[in-house]
Amino acid sequence: MTEQQEKGATEAIRVGVLGAHGRMGTEVCKAVDAAPDLELVASADQSDWLGDVSAAGAEVVVDFTTPDVVMDNLHWCVDQGIHAVVGTTGFTEQRLERVRGWLADKPGVGVVIAPNFGLGAVLMMQFATRAARYFESVEIVEQHHPRKLDAPSGTATHTARLIAAARAEAGLGPVPDATSDEVAGARGADIGGVRVHAVRATGLVAHQEVLFGATGETLTIRHDSYDRVSFMPGVLLAVRAVRARPGLTLGLDALLD
Amino acid sequence: MTEQQEKGATEAIRVGVLGAHGRMGTEVCKAVDAAPDLELVASADQSDWLGDVSAAGAEVVVDFTTPDVVMDNLHWCVDQGIHAVVGTTGFTEQRLERVRGWLADKPGVGVVIAPNFGLGAVLMMQFATRAARYFESVEIVEQHHPRKLDAPSGTATHTARLIAAARAEAGLGPVPDATSDEVAGARGADIGGVRVHAVRATGLVAHQEVLFGATGETLTIRHDSYDRVSFMPGVLLAVRAVRARPGLTLGLDALLD
Amino acid sequence: MTEQQEKGATEAIRVGVLGAHGRMGTEVCKAVDAAPDLELVASADQSDWLGDVSAAGAEVVVDFTTPDVVMDNLHWCVDQGIHAVVGTTGFTEQRLERVRGWLADKPGVGVVIAPNFGLGAVLMMQFATRAARYFESVEIVEQHHPRKLDAPSGTATHTARLIAAARAEAGLGPVPDATSDEVAGARGADIGGVRVHAVRATGLVAHQEVLFGATGETLTIRHDSYDRVSFMPGVLLAVRAVRARPGLTLGLDALLD
Amino acid sequence: MTEQQEKGATEAIRVGVLGAHGRMGTEVCKAVDAAPDLELVASADQSDWLGDVSAAGAEVVVDFTTPDVVMDNLHWCVDQGIHAVVGTTGFTEQRLERVRGWLADKPGVGVVIAPNFGLGAVLMMQFATRAARYFESVEIVEQHHPRKLDAPSGTATHTARLIAAARAEAGLGPVPDATSDEVAGARGADIGGVRVHAVRATGLVAHQEVLFGATGETLTIRHDSYDRVSFMPGVLLAVRAVRARPGLTLGLDALLD
Repeated sequence: MTEQQEKGATEAIRVGVLGAHGRMGTEVCKAVDAAPDLELVASADQSDWLGDVSAAGAEVVVDFTTPDVVMDNLHWCVDQGIHAVVGTTGFTEQRLERVRGWLADKPGVGVVIAPNFGLGAVLMMQFATRAARYFESVEIVEQHHPRKLDAPSGTATHTARLIAAARAEAGLGPVPDATSDEVAGARGADIGGVRVHAVRATGLVAHQEVLFGATGETLTIRHDSYDRVSFMPGVLLAVRAVRARPGLTLGLDALLD
Repeated sequence: MTEQQEKGATEAIRVGVLGAHGRMGTEVCKAVDAAPDLELVASADQSDWLGDVSAAGAEVVVDFTTPDVVMDNLHWCVDQGIHAVVGTTGFTEQRLERVRGWLADKPGVGVVIAPNFGLGAVLMMQFATRAARYFESVEIVEQHHPRKLDAPSGTATHTARLIAAARAEAGLGPVPDATSDEVAGARGADIGGVRVHAVRATGLVAHQEVLFGATGETLTIRHDSYDRVSFMPGVLLAVRAVRARPGLTLGLDALLD
Repeated sequence: MTEQQEKGATEAIRVGVLGAHGRMGTEVCKAVDAAPDLELVASADQSDWLGDVSAAGAEVVVDFTTPDVVMDNLHWCVDQGIHAVVGTTGFTEQRLERVRGWLADKPGVGVVIAPNFGLGAVLMMQFATRAARYFESVEIVEQHHPRKLDAPSGTATHTARLIAAARAEAGLGPVPDATSDEVAGARGADIGGVRVHAVRATGLVAHQEVLFGATGETLTIRHDSYDRVSFMPGVLLAVRAVRARPGLTLGLDALLD
Repeated sequence: MTEQQEKGATEAIRVGVLGAHGRMGTEVCKAVDAAPDLELVASADQSDWLGDVSAAGAEVVVDFTTPDVVMDNLHWCVDQGIHAVVGTTGFTEQRLERVRGWLADKPGVGVVIAPNFGLGAVLMMQFATRAARYFESVEIVEQHHPRKLDAPSGTATHTARLIAAARAEAGLGPVPDATSDEVAGARGADIGGVRVHAVRATGLVAHQEVLFGATGETLTIRHDSYDRVSFMPGVLLAVRAVRARPGLTLGLDALLD
């Protein structure tokens, strides 16, 4: 093996960040900078030229921008043969179809688009989906700060739907519940047959508990999130994985294992 | 001190049990029997004579019978100068007035009537009442087996009312909650301004959590009950205390400290 | 399709239980009896003839006996072409080899031997193993009644070893811990680099919590077991699966999915 | 009542803050500023004159400085007839004696010195002390970030000692524990007969759980602290109470109720 090859084997992945001055982008820049196997070669924001990012030799771009610019960014990345990890929201099925079209012409390029880069939340949903078929009962209790507008949270609603689908597939009937005398609301919201309770209290940040019950035992999966830095391990995981996954990957799920 | 006095100082309390063959009564008999400072001198059920209980020299009677016979039992106990500890349900304000009337004629006799002999549950309610004034937010999550008919549980409703009263007394306003987009029921039942969530799942027995929140911290008081034997320490506490508490005592609360 | 075929398609699995009068065996008989797709055709204990079990047409035998008789039982089952689900303890690697030898001569017969039929516990260990590689920190807290002789529990020790192996495989270094001033024992037992804490308290039954931590978030997997009936769903799962799994299957794990 | 008196009745308490630029002092200034019934009239740090604080008419001083200057500050406050709320550490019994001496000469002045202004933590300790006599079993599990040097935490050790004293006073014997086969450390640290377990994991902040157990039930008191702003309600409580409590008050405990 030549020296060049040896060096190449351990060379850091060259990363560019779009939306680098936003709340998430700032954290991404710090996280990339701190990772020994990654190198931050470009950090661009609104007024910057995308050309500078490719000029800097970025192999992977991380995009935490806004729905109005993310499609142009992505098109440009794919065109340039740069892999992309995208946390920006607003991806409709139509938008995803357009991305798939661009990628069809660039078979070596990978794009990961994920609505949630929190590894803990993603694992919680995976485990809950997997456990669902083995337990007669299941309920979700999510807990957030009182400034939150929606109840239940998007994550809780999504988890409930995944569980409901897994129960249906396993042929499970309705969750047993003899309640005949209820003060309105006590039994929570019904999301596809799964009861979801939303607790709001000062001091809380973002928490969720999925409780499974069978005769004589319960299994509880709980996720506590305190800070947006908790998304960084998921972003870095995607950065490291995207080069080996040509085409479009949706959600962090597919990258776990 | 004579030998007689010395013996007297450590003599076991002589206890009779009414409703001795019922589920609770059976446990009470076992618990009294196992306590070194108590002596089970009589255990009576439906067809037995109350006279046998006084003939056996009972100083304290424990009554876990039914609403239709408990008033006669109590009247007879007070008449005979026997102290009583009562776990039977169905005590209206009217019934309590009658008991007070009987006791007025027998100033040395004590009667303890308690709806809940679970020390853990009673302490949970005491602590929740006491903490209420110091926290901006509070919610209750109770968890029970799915055969339960009412939601929320009586204990949860009672706890919520105690908390609501303590908040009002301390001049606290409503619990903060910005929810504007709610799937019906997600935010639980509203009991006097306190949100209460009722979880039902196979495998659960009887559990309750009271969550208090202030900026940067939460305080949680949780009670898990698995078995009716958990009521026995409360019953024995009352048996030991009732002789020194003439008149009517309502609830285990007053006996703690 | 003839009536005979139609019936065959939905015919109940014919089950025999060995050790039918023991604590576990009694529960197994009840559970098989209650399952619409299973039929209890024989329940044998010490003095009973195994011949009666095959005479009754058992297709699957469940064995919760003792280490001194289980090998004879198993040998006989395999010989008769009866599938077996075994919860009896005491299987050394040597014993397992002998079972594999018997099965080699009967390629259609399946044997499932599992140390733990609790689905919740098995899933907890699966999920913990899977999450291990994604979190910098991990600790285990197990909680049991105070009559337990060993600390930590076998399940906690086993979970810690699974996690340690998964961390090693993922190239994770030691769990971060700056403790320099420790009262002996405060940081728990060290099982392969994973800290395990054993809580003992009256009122508890059998509980375990695995806590994973990364920057800004924690993921907790908790199992609460209250009763030996909690093992029945796992036993029934094995009974239903064993006919389609010739050879030796170790642990319930392999049957999930 | 004259207008003057009426105004006086609702006049804001005039507060000065010493150590105003420190981490805690900064938060105190913000909290006082935000409270409608308090007025921040002076905020001093190292190079500032204490004279400015009295010139500004401070009635109550809050001191979050350092052990080397706090005694001089306190002496000066008492001399000036200004009440003081002190969160600075380093108060030995000797120092407290000196403060009591100064206060003896100024009977109208109040000083509150507290090691912990977290209401949640203080209530947790109060409730734990109160519950201790009613439960056969008790253990403490505290959980902190992995940069913490001591294990268990000071709060956990203090809680254990309070519980041990309450058990001794109630005549309770040792906590039941049949452990005969222990991996070193599994059963935690022994603090006065109470087992204390210290969990360390990235993602955690500062948490403590006190678990009480009796036959068939457990009672758990849990405190989660995320942020030093959680101490502010306790500081403000002391500021409001100190004027009505001449002499030395140790700990926030005495001010609750």
